[in-house]
Amino acid sequence: MIYKLYYWPGIQGRGEFVRLALEEGGADYLDIALVPEEQGGGVPAMLEFLDGPGVARPPFAPPFLQAGRKLIGQTANILLFLGPRLGLAPRAAAGRLWAHQLQLTLADFVLEIHDTHHPIGGGLYYEEQKPEAKRRSREFLAQRLPKFLGYFERAIERNGGIWMADNRLGYVDLSMAQVVAGLRYAFPRASKNALRPCPRLRALHDAVFARPRIKRYVASGRRLAFNNDDLFRHYPELDA
Amino acid sequence: MIYKLYYWPGIQGRGEFVRLALEEGGADYLDIALVPEEQGGGVPAMLEFLDGPGVARPPFAPPFLQAGRKLIGQTANILLFLGPRLGLAPRAAAGRLWAHQLQLTLADFVLEIHDTHHPIGGGLYYEEQKPEAKRRSREFLAQRLPKFLGYFERAIERNGGIWMADNRLGYVDLSMAQVVAGLRYAFPRASKNALRPCPRLRALHDAVFARPRIKRYVASGRRLAFNNDDLFRHYPELDA
Repeated sequence: MIYKLYYWPGIQGRGEFVRLALEEGGADYLDIALVPEEQGGGVPAMLEFLDGPGVARPPFAPPFLQAGRKLIGQTANILLFLGPRLGLAPRAAAGRLWAHQLQLTLADFVLEIHDTHHPIGGGLYYEEQKPEAKRRSREFLAQRLPKFLGYFERAIERNGGIWMADNRLGYVDLSMAQVVAGLRYAFPRASKNALRPCPRLRALHDAVFARPRIKRYVASGRRLAFNNDDLFRHYPELDA
Repeated sequence: MIYKLYYWPGIQGRGEFVRLALEEGGADYLDIALVPEEQGGGVPAMLEFLDGPGVARPPFAPPFLQAGRKLIGQTANILLFLGPRLGLAPRAAAGRLWAHQLQLTLADFVLEIHDTHHPIGGGLYYEEQKPEAKRRSREFLAQRLPKFLGYFERAIERNGGIWMADNRLGYVDLSMAQVVAGLRYAFPRASKNALRPCPRLRALHDAVFARPRIKRYVASGRRLAFNNDDLFRHYPELDA
């Protein structure tokens, strides 16, 4: 099975949560964002599924995954599908629900991180909503960041201290590590403080990025750098 | 199996998506918000699962469902679990993923609806973020509301014109009807305009609230009225 991943080029975004699972799982996949438009890739290929009249089950937004005849949207749903196939999900049904529940909570967290720089709307530039972004970031860093991190730290602790939802690494661990990396990029000051009481999250981040396949992926150049067109953005004025 | 639903008393909130499925599915369930504190119900019973040190897999927030020894959080995850058990999910695996994908997109929509009155943070009162709420609502009503409704209308159309993800009613239809009802409460003016080109969504809403079990539930008095402590809030100044 060769999976095809559709996402915006130039950013990690939510596509990166899927990429990390595909890489760690050793999957054969085609990142359509990296395929030139002349060869049927890039944004036009993606838009055909979003806007094309012939798509029976169109996704609302990228990322989405093509797996044979299946077209699967929503990041957490893609990982729910891929997890067992790539050996990255718990074996028992109850464990799979729990991993998915954590992934959905991570998705909520990621949206709140995104909205620190876009509290008014995704259709406006950051520069058009700077005062609101400042206010929202202040609230986020004071209330939400420690609450979410404390919750995930506790989840690891209650699961034995190493991984989030299983006795081995799974897709939620990959996503969690990515969020820690993104927070450090976006809010170097605040995230350092917020992560101080979270030794398990810091260790999880390091364990994920030390995995041979993840290291190979990072070294390949295919993993894009964080940047300010992305989900995680570094605006020093928000990191207060 | 007697399910136990944990949620805040006094509001429909996200708990209502689960209640509608339990009601339509004819499930035996206990709504812990309605059980007096002296009898082990209400908010203290809920907080024990959120904050209690002995909970192996604590939810981040309500609603959550107890089903035997399972404790399941995240609205869409609860419905993923309940759907097949209540005859409210497609039979095929691919159909179930699609229904879940739509439910996750509805969850995104619901969060954006919520954030129209709380664009800065859930820890502040509406009155503390009124100018920002006005701006966010303007963006939402102009860009996001028609985009989401158009998407869901198209999903019904491509699924045969009646239901969203199957050839019979399922949990996503119940949730979609609830969102239409909530929008009409929150934004009577804007939602009337936005729903005009969506005959299938309007028909779906009516079909759901004409179901015998849903009618019985609404007539029972157990379904709370929409109110301004809830997810969907009616502030006339935002409905512009």
